[in-house]
Amino acid sequence: MRKVDILVIGGSAAGLVAAMTAKSSHPDQDVMMIRKEDKVMVPCGIPYIFGVLGNSEDNIMPDAGLNQLGVEILVDSVTEVDKDNKQCKTEKGETIQYKKLIFATGSQPIVPGWLKGSDLENVFTIPKNKEYLDAFLEKAKVFNNIVVVGAGFIGVETSDELNKTGKNITLVEIQPRILGLAFDEEIAFDAEEKLKSRGVNVVTGVGLKEVQGEGKVKSVELSDGKIMEADAVILSMGYRPNVELAKATGLQINEKGFIVVDEYMRTSEPDIFAAGDCASKRCFATGKLSTTMLASTACAEARVAGLNLYSLSTFRSFKGTIGIYSTSIGDSSYGVAGLTEENASKEGFHIVTGSFAGIDRHPGKLPGMHKQIVKLIVSKDSGRIIGGEVIGGSSVGELINVIGFAIQGGMTFMDLLVSQIGTQPVLTASPAAYPLIKAAEVVLKKMNN
Amino acid sequence: MRKVDILVIGGSAAGLVAAMTAKSSHPDQDVMMIRKEDKVMVPCGIPYIFGVLGNSEDNIMPDAGLNQLGVEILVDSVTEVDKDNKQCKTEKGETIQYKKLIFATGSQPIVPGWLKGSDLENVFTIPKNKEYLDAFLEKAKVFNNIVVVGAGFIGVETSDELNKTGKNITLVEIQPRILGLAFDEEIAFDAEEKLKSRGVNVVTGVGLKEVQGEGKVKSVELSDGKIMEADAVILSMGYRPNVELAKATGLQINEKGFIVVDEYMRTSEPDIFAAGDCASKRCFATGKLSTTMLASTACAEARVAGLNLYSLSTFRSFKGTIGIYSTSIGDSSYGVAGLTEENASKEGFHIVTGSFAGIDRHPGKLPGMHKQIVKLIVSKDSGRIIGGEVIGGSSVGELINVIGFAIQGGMTFMDLLVSQIGTQPVLTASPAAYPLIKAAEVVLKKMNN
Repeated sequence: MRKVDILVIGGSAAGLVAAMTAKSSHPDQDVMMIRKEDKVMVPCGIPYIFGVLGNSEDNIMPDAGLNQLGVEILVDSVTEVDKDNKQCKTEKGETIQYKKLIFATGSQPIVPGWLKGSDLENVFTIPKNKEYLDAFLEKAKVFNNIVVVGAGFIGVETSDELNKTGKNITLVEIQPRILGLAFDEEIAFDAEEKLKSRGVNVVTGVGLKEVQGEGKVKSVELSDGKIMEADAVILSMGYRPNVELAKATGLQINEKGFIVVDEYMRTSEPDIFAAGDCASKRCFATGKLSTTMLASTACAEARVAGLNLYSLSTFRSFKGTIGIYSTSIGDSSYGVAGLTEENASKEGFHIVTGSFAGIDRHPGKLPGMHKQIVKLIVSKDSGRIIGGEVIGGSSVGELINVIGFAIQGGMTFMDLLVSQIGTQPVLTASPAAYPLIKAAEVVLKKMNN
Repeated sequence: MRKVDILVIGGSAAGLVAAMTAKSSHPDQDVMMIRKEDKVMVPCGIPYIFGVLGNSEDNIMPDAGLNQLGVEILVDSVTEVDKDNKQCKTEKGETIQYKKLIFATGSQPIVPGWLKGSDLENVFTIPKNKEYLDAFLEKAKVFNNIVVVGAGFIGVETSDELNKTGKNITLVEIQPRILGLAFDEEIAFDAEEKLKSRGVNVVTGVGLKEVQGEGKVKSVELSDGKIMEADAVILSMGYRPNVELAKATGLQINEKGFIVVDEYMRTSEPDIFAAGDCASKRCFATGKLSTTMLASTACAEARVAGLNLYSLSTFRSFKGTIGIYSTSIGDSSYGVAGLTEENASKEGFHIVTGSFAGIDRHPGKLPGMHKQIVKLIVSKDSGRIIGGEVIGGSSVGELINVIGFAIQGGMTFMDLLVSQIGTQPVLTASPAAYPLIKAAEVVLKKMNN
């Protein structure tokens, strides 16, 4: 029987970061990470293997960080956890004793049980599995018409990338807009127009009824009765947490199907932690259970888990998912942090919003200029920023983090108004018309009225 | 005699923002801005007229925002302020009565009094003056050898832009490194190597002794006795505040030569405010007088002035210059916020630094990938972030604002460790190896030892 101090189950973003944080904050403890795959996909990079990368080999998470720290990697699969004796059994027959155990078992694509034809050949999902994705890439060479179902970030990025290869791509979304759960209407509208302008056939407000074919896919029928030819169907209809092992272990599972964890990422069992897509999440603003799964949240949770294994610190707890994300369609990028206007209103916040449309260079004649729109969502009684959305060029990825830090720092719109920002002609908007600050001015004006 | 409620003297960044903020937060008050020039240069954009823009017309600050709000613009110059009677006299013979007056008189390039030959033809500075810059651009057509003296941001950007036009550019800096006052040694070194690799002749650790020639420039002599041929010399040796009018008005001037203001940007006289390069500045970390002039700081000060004209609010005060700036050399960008390691140590802080070198895409095979290095400067006793420096691609402009907000929000390295950041393959670093968070991990490790 092998013995380790800290055992991490899972080798994607949360597992990697949990193992590295555990080892680097407890250098005298042995850390082992068990993962199913020899080579692990960069999760957010997967859509790009369908287009600009063209293969999965260029999308591997490097092991260098783990190796340098001295984390042991075992390619195997845990089949059983005996929590009372603190032992794991693996598929390859190992028994491993641990002091601290971290579940980072991730999530897998949802295939709705009601969906007729989902078992036909050439119906795909997008799991974080290299072999599966390689098989898709090989088969995709002969596909002409591909229908992507579900226009969240993965569906949108996958459609845009596949479209670059010259195939005929249709993106089907049951919501009125693509990315409609992530962004408010006006931002989602801009993204949808951009995706259409690039040649993707976007069908919204209509669901998938069934996949049709004999043996393999020939067409799909939509909820409005329309039938579309398809050589392949890609289902990007969301993900569900992998909790079978956790259930069998006796860990508490919440009503949304996630492993219950507290602010220190501790499960219901002493010495067992969980982080990432498999762990329960709460909204930072309401404390309500959330189902938002993001690699970036997973990494933050994994750090919290790794830091609190042997001794809790209130400074190191996780205060709920803010949900900060961005995506890119052609030369336009879209970012969101915290609550949208729609979600904030639904939750019962009295809010004031401020939007400002500017440009991301100064002067605007500088090359690479892109429009930049910032929308702020502010809680009326406290003035605190509870959400923000951005349209712009490639700087959106970090600009949305500026807003994320404003939210995490408890900043009000007034703090924003008098805050200091750095600006540079070829890198950012003008200091006199920096859309984030100007949006706060719009909020001020509305507050005064 | 004309009467206005709020009069702003100066039309560059601070004047523009002061006037707009004054009008938008006091819509019932008349606001007038007096400026010397009909067309105002975007201040930070000036280096780019020498290269990528090629002319000054593409670098004009638009009046649209002022016009839309109903701010009156008067092209004239204030020659005298009678503070007791609240009246200004102008060059064109107007007398204007005001209730509130804002000085935003800016700064002008320093030409050292000791510099022999500074009055020769083809010795230039870089003032914010369109006519002067147009005259330079016209003459520059025939220059082959240009010596730029002073390697702050403006000197560096000007050298890089002029170099693009095929001229032979030498940049002379008395400090051991270019940008050496802004960045720590290792970051400045990277910037210097980058600038050299682009063909700019960089001479550091050597000062300018004199400019030589008869009637017009023929050469420069450096402090080490070396003589270099030159068709033109550009002095970018710093700026000094324009305070002659303020002095004549009877406003208090500090020992560094700036108009004394308090946290609400009020001068020593009731109902007179000042903002921007002409107004006194303090370091956010020590409260000591500072001489750092930035358009972005100017805009923040101008907002504070505009918001506090009639009624002070503690929420709207200015807590000292953090100094957040960035620059770009070719495809590399450099950003800094707050104190450098060197400055923090000089000031007497016990600090811990953490640096992490990563990349700004994930996976790294995605196009446009650039190395990304983040260095954090942390106060040892409190754990608070007091400075940060970044090397990277074009996202540096906003990434340094993320660090700026961490400083302004009073975040500690521990807050950073468990903070949530948004990541996206083509826009940012990986969530598992986001250099800002990894740098905080390095700080943690050092703190534990």
